[in-house]
Amino acid sequence: MSFALPPRLVAEAVERALAEDIGRGDITTDALIDADDRCMGALVAREAGVVAGLDLAAAAFRALDPDMRFEPAVADGDKVAARAIVARVSGRTRALLSAERVALNFLTHLSGIATLTRRHVDAVAGSKARIVDTRKTLPGLRVLEKYAVRAGGGFNHRFGLDDAVMIKDNHIVAAGGVAAAVARVRANIGHMVKICCEVDRLDQIDDALAAGADVLLLDNMDPATLAEAVRVVAGRAVCEASGKVSLDTVAAIASSGVDVISVGRLTHSAPALDIALDFDD
Amino acid sequence: MSFALPPRLVAEAVERALAEDIGRGDITTDALIDADDRCMGALVAREAGVVAGLDLAAAAFRALDPDMRFEPAVADGDKVAARAIVARVSGRTRALLSAERVALNFLTHLSGIATLTRRHVDAVAGSKARIVDTRKTLPGLRVLEKYAVRAGGGFNHRFGLDDAVMIKDNHIVAAGGVAAAVARVRANIGHMVKICCEVDRLDQIDDALAAGADVLLLDNMDPATLAEAVRVVAGRAVCEASGKVSLDTVAAIASSGVDVISVGRLTHSAPALDIALDFDD
Amino acid sequence: MSFALPPRLVAEAVERALAEDIGRGDITTDALIDADDRCMGALVAREAGVVAGLDLAAAAFRALDPDMRFEPAVADGDKVAARAIVARVSGRTRALLSAERVALNFLTHLSGIATLTRRHVDAVAGSKARIVDTRKTLPGLRVLEKYAVRAGGGFNHRFGLDDAVMIKDNHIVAAGGVAAAVARVRANIGHMVKICCEVDRLDQIDDALAAGADVLLLDNMDPATLAEAVRVVAGRAVCEASGKVSLDTVAAIASSGVDVISVGRLTHSAPALDIALDFDD
Amino acid sequence: MSFALPPRLVAEAVERALAEDIGRGDITTDALIDADDRCMGALVAREAGVVAGLDLAAAAFRALDPDMRFEPAVADGDKVAARAIVARVSGRTRALLSAERVALNFLTHLSGIATLTRRHVDAVAGSKARIVDTRKTLPGLRVLEKYAVRAGGGFNHRFGLDDAVMIKDNHIVAAGGVAAAVARVRANIGHMVKICCEVDRLDQIDDALAAGADVLLLDNMDPATLAEAVRVVAGRAVCEASGKVSLDTVAAIASSGVDVISVGRLTHSAPALDIALDFDD
Amino acid sequence: MSFALPPRLVAEAVERALAEDIGRGDITTDALIDADDRCMGALVAREAGVVAGLDLAAAAFRALDPDMRFEPAVADGDKVAARAIVARVSGRTRALLSAERVALNFLTHLSGIATLTRRHVDAVAGSKARIVDTRKTLPGLRVLEKYAVRAGGGFNHRFGLDDAVMIKDNHIVAAGGVAAAVARVRANIGHMVKICCEVDRLDQIDDALAAGADVLLLDNMDPATLAEAVRVVAGRAVCEASGKVSLDTVAAIASSGVDVISVGRLTHSAPALDIALDFDD
Amino acid sequence: MSFALPPRLVAEAVERALAEDIGRGDITTDALIDADDRCMGALVAREAGVVAGLDLAAAAFRALDPDMRFEPAVADGDKVAARAIVARVSGRTRALLSAERVALNFLTHLSGIATLTRRHVDAVAGSKARIVDTRKTLPGLRVLEKYAVRAGGGFNHRFGLDDAVMIKDNHIVAAGGVAAAVARVRANIGHMVKICCEVDRLDQIDDALAAGADVLLLDNMDPATLAEAVRVVAGRAVCEASGKVSLDTVAAIASSGVDVISVGRLTHSAPALDIALDFDD
Repeated sequence: MSFALPPRLVAEAVERALAEDIGRGDITTDALIDADDRCMGALVAREAGVVAGLDLAAAAFRALDPDMRFEPAVADGDKVAARAIVARVSGRTRALLSAERVALNFLTHLSGIATLTRRHVDAVAGSKARIVDTRKTLPGLRVLEKYAVRAGGGFNHRFGLDDAVMIKDNHIVAAGGVAAAVARVRANIGHMVKICCEVDRLDQIDDALAAGADVLLLDNMDPATLAEAVRVVAGRAVCEASGKVSLDTVAAIASSGVDVISVGRLTHSAPALDIALDFDD
Repeated sequence: MSFALPPRLVAEAVERALAEDIGRGDITTDALIDADDRCMGALVAREAGVVAGLDLAAAAFRALDPDMRFEPAVADGDKVAARAIVARVSGRTRALLSAERVALNFLTHLSGIATLTRRHVDAVAGSKARIVDTRKTLPGLRVLEKYAVRAGGGFNHRFGLDDAVMIKDNHIVAAGGVAAAVARVRANIGHMVKICCEVDRLDQIDDALAAGADVLLLDNMDPATLAEAVRVVAGRAVCEASGKVSLDTVAAIASSGVDVISVGRLTHSAPALDIALDFDD
Repeated sequence: MSFALPPRLVAEAVERALAEDIGRGDITTDALIDADDRCMGALVAREAGVVAGLDLAAAAFRALDPDMRFEPAVADGDKVAARAIVARVSGRTRALLSAERVALNFLTHLSGIATLTRRHVDAVAGSKARIVDTRKTLPGLRVLEKYAVRAGGGFNHRFGLDDAVMIKDNHIVAAGGVAAAVARVRANIGHMVKICCEVDRLDQIDDALAAGADVLLLDNMDPATLAEAVRVVAGRAVCEASGKVSLDTVAAIASSGVDVISVGRLTHSAPALDIALDFDD
Repeated sequence: MSFALPPRLVAEAVERALAEDIGRGDITTDALIDADDRCMGALVAREAGVVAGLDLAAAAFRALDPDMRFEPAVADGDKVAARAIVARVSGRTRALLSAERVALNFLTHLSGIATLTRRHVDAVAGSKARIVDTRKTLPGLRVLEKYAVRAGGGFNHRFGLDDAVMIKDNHIVAAGGVAAAVARVRANIGHMVKICCEVDRLDQIDDALAAGADVLLLDNMDPATLAEAVRVVAGRAVCEASGKVSLDTVAAIASSGVDVISVGRLTHSAPALDIALDFDD
Repeated sequence: MSFALPPRLVAEAVERALAEDIGRGDITTDALIDADDRCMGALVAREAGVVAGLDLAAAAFRALDPDMRFEPAVADGDKVAARAIVARVSGRTRALLSAERVALNFLTHLSGIATLTRRHVDAVAGSKARIVDTRKTLPGLRVLEKYAVRAGGGFNHRFGLDDAVMIKDNHIVAAGGVAAAVARVRANIGHMVKICCEVDRLDQIDDALAAGADVLLLDNMDPATLAEAVRVVAGRAVCEASGKVSLDTVAAIASSGVDVISVGRLTHSAPALDIALDFDD
Repeated sequence: MSFALPPRLVAEAVERALAEDIGRGDITTDALIDADDRCMGALVAREAGVVAGLDLAAAAFRALDPDMRFEPAVADGDKVAARAIVARVSGRTRALLSAERVALNFLTHLSGIATLTRRHVDAVAGSKARIVDTRKTLPGLRVLEKYAVRAGGGFNHRFGLDDAVMIKDNHIVAAGGVAAAVARVRANIGHMVKICCEVDRLDQIDDALAAGADVLLLDNMDPATLAEAVRVVAGRAVCEASGKVSLDTVAAIASSGVDVISVGRLTHSAPALDIALDFDD
């Protein structure tokens, strides 16, 4: 499986975060630590979870000390236990202290998302359902957050308004119905673009499929209705369940036979995974 | 009380978020909605909470339609009930649909922070303790998140490494003790900068104060020890409690008499407040 | 049909182009023309073709004079005859003179692409083949150029490496064959992403389809082979012809029954359409 | 002869182009190619021409793999035959595949310009006329395109509105005649700036020269009139021919004795030179 | 005379300066001034001088309040007496207070340059010598500072390394003498570029002129030697005096008959002109 | 003492300055100097002073030749005599020539500030007064200029409107008096922010102190009044003198016993220190 983050996005995200935190200079560290002092330490998980964002943490430290050694003890996507070492780091003390918070802010947030995703993935184990994210991401962090979802075993829904078509209620109303909406998009869109159409009632399914939808978004249906929808679709399109998904409900939803379950809270409400930097004595 | 966000930061955050979401164009909306179509709708809270981020939501809609009307029904910092209208919006349908997710991503995240902050503030009501944030913010969103903390009734700790001094354990070790560290900073720093010094034991307090600390960070102390620290300090510095603060513990911590309680989870783990855009029929 | 260019991309492209041309200031115009002088003129086609890029031309003039009137006489996608007026423009003389070249550089380049596209589209009229572009675009201008292809009646292939999968020979070699390559991607990629697989020989078709390819890129095949490929595919995937397509060959290729013909020269070798700004006397 | 492109402009152009193409990540390559795989290949000309843009191609590959080896077999400005190797490249397979299109898009476009320029230069061999470009360049690519003109043996006209003065018809009308326009600019402009004045009729020449023009733009004159203009000028200024210049007409224009012939199509209508990346087996 | 600053450069300079000063927000003003409060005031010169930079001051205020009224009482280039009103301004109190320092920092710096330039220009009145600037400008402010020189009655030397050729001692050494250096550049450079060659001894003049220099930089010569150089040149090139120019020496230098005197201190050492913002009672 | 400039700010400032100067390319150097030529030289002070900005000079040279050797002979903050070598530099000749002016523009400006600051610091030697800067800095250069003040032995006042509170006359008027203004800010501002309040009359001192001011800005008071103010404050706050401070008056002001003297001219009116680059023969 492939986890790559585009290097440019990593560099930009780290540069922006360091600029935000360091601003006009780290006045505490510069006043107290000699420029040539060196030290080492370890990033340690304070609780169990799934790690994501090691490249970002490494990039933060190296941005302030190009010779910084950053040695991961695990890889993104790995589960760690509480008190496990996530990575060891050594280099100039000033760089460690000045980059510490930025490195941790990336790592704890993305690991929090990976951990929450993994819990959903584990909850549907045995079903064929994939757990996918949404566009409910924190502004400016979407590609990173969607990477963390993959690290947690999930898959990505579309990345933006430009890479796939999703026809929602308001679009349907404007176009005069499901069939007209799908058909109109199909006539105008390139042959490399998939079309997902929201379906709130079972009787819309055949219209959507006839007009050429690739994916049906079955919104806010209970497991029984979902199962009926899956039966009606009969493999003619991908079935995606959406709405009110939580760890309490996801297994039941998966049992309906849907292909995909999209979960907004993976990215908009994942608590941070507690990871800290412990300096060696 | 003042809630202003610098207009440039609002504009930049919104532009970045729209670029991230719209990318090469909203292919669904452009295919289905006529450029001149207009509609109206309401931002509605799906659960009770405290609102923050209305200016960002307004800016997102207006970035795509300069004539968009955005009429807040409440102000940032106001409590809303479930199903309350937060704002009404009307303008070009394309702009409403293309900006909807970005507007909501800001509003739900910042309102989530404001709501969680307010719960902590309410929990310490009757004490003199202020609830403050930390630098544990999501990369690129710090000024916005700290604004949301203020909207929730909290106060801000320093914004970055450059606007105030915080001397932590590693600094103290490097400088050879609390007294040396504080004194060295004091000698080199401008007269407009405050110095906060971490104190893990009561016997460090007098050293820190003698050397000129303005604020003492009392780290991971239980309420009884905090109360003793407050007694020792006797008004000679601001007392800040930190570490393992939650809604379960914050009232007890406040009862120790500390001036300030800093809470990382306000910004790194606040769940989104559910707000949606309902189009008028 | 939908022609929208994201406003931010228009603004950025125009700002960059004006900065490139004006640099430290238009020393001729500023020396000779009074700041308050006003004039009017017309953008006139010097040869017949299809227009594209009116919004960019308008934005260039308005960037230097917000009150500039720019009144298109035609719309993007319209055919114009030689000597036809494309748009009328009036406002401050300085702004007209300083923005003229940038406005025309966009308009003549994009109209050149639209014109060349239209000639290909007309050449395949009567067939079911769509004319589509490639990623062989001029650096920094891709979204604009792909817009011009749509204005000329063509359709867009994928916009970048991120919005759809194209498995080419080198990928196939690395993965150990067509079937393995398609299957490996299918297992890892989100459900909203289409997969196009290059096929150089007819015997690869069934493997690609069995593994789940949505589109087959039939590379450098003659019309007879293409027709045979279409027969083998039998509607199980989109058939795309590619390689050595020109106005001389495109009709024969279309007659093979393929769904899509991709043409690199639409964007990398289209000559400009001659359009000039004539000032009124 | 000097061909240097400012390193910052190379870096910015490549970064922008890679961002445009890779966007949120190369999903095909990342899914199929292992991060540590390495390979080698050659950039091969598919047709004869003049090469330009090797530094940009190299920069594109190295942006994704700093250890990429890029070994040019020729230099910018060299003629190559069909099937000639232009450069060899070896490094990480992912970087080769993800940067290939951007590297080629620069190289084929700039080589196309150099090739077309060389054909014009060769066509006027034996005359004293220099072939120069115009400001009719593709937006955002001017400095690169003007570099390609030099690589093809041409020379550069002014780079923008800020580095030299060109007084055109509309300026002349506004200023009240050729003499007044040139004199007014001369009085206000720095001593390091050259002034070029458009001249449509022979009787304007003496006025322009008396007022201090350094260069006369002889617009849309036939060769006989140009020859007469050259005779009248008699070495008092540089004579530049402009308008309707093509490979069919350029030799006759040169024979008039003009010093400079400016050709818009060098940059706005040059077809790409076909160059491809062949992987070693 | 033409004073225009490119609007984009004004906007960028003001945006950067406001970002630098306001940072995360004007915490004093926001805490004390109501968002709707309005007030008025005047920019008043505290000492006599020449004003430059009114557009930048206006842009700074308007960036924070688009409805701000900014009414200049004088124009750039005008002399003002001590206590003269330079402009009146009225609008939101918050915007006035938050933008005041940035507006004044531009205005006092550029007016300082204009004032110092004017003193040099006045000192050479009656001679034909023009006072010009150099590239010794403060980083990031060159176009603005060169504008201020023009406002003070001076002229601009080249703006950068790219818009004109200056051959200095080290270039001459590298090229093997004055004649070789000038000839080599002449052979390679476009016809719209002027060539200035440094000359330290009178015997270099004929070589430089024969090779085609347009301007001679007569470096560190005393007035008598300058006069002799002017005699030798005899109108065949522009004569520029340079080196150790001050208000004490400039008149004597001008009396030598040189065309141009370049003065580094105009931009690198001009003291600010004292201008302040007085609020109306 | 700590002199660090954030590396990102150095890189950005140098990149912007090089872009401003080199623009589309150094046409003189590229035409005359071979790309592989190498040379060496020395930065030499032409007059005595205090050096600041060596990192910026080094960064300018290295931006154009990553292998450039830059060997400082002194450190920022050191005094140098006239004709002293400041640094030696060796590398590619093109890079030395193209970066020379930018390197020197930073070095001479910042050294000018450091030199002027040192003269003020020396003038108050023996008193307890610190010399501090203001926000009267040149736009875009504030952090660099404040660094130079530290290099000259001064201290920094606040860096912007966001890192400390300064309540000035207009704020006081708006808030209804000194006591109300300070109290209102105190109630709303975080515990890490210092409050400075302007005081024009002695009878305002007790109000300001009672409301919680940390620093009193004693504006435009003569030394006797300042001494009286110091007596009234009696150590309850920092006393800062401001207004009309020059080398002629600063010693007398310091003798009043104030803690801090702020001097605008350190940054807005410091003449450059003359430093040049001499190439080795």
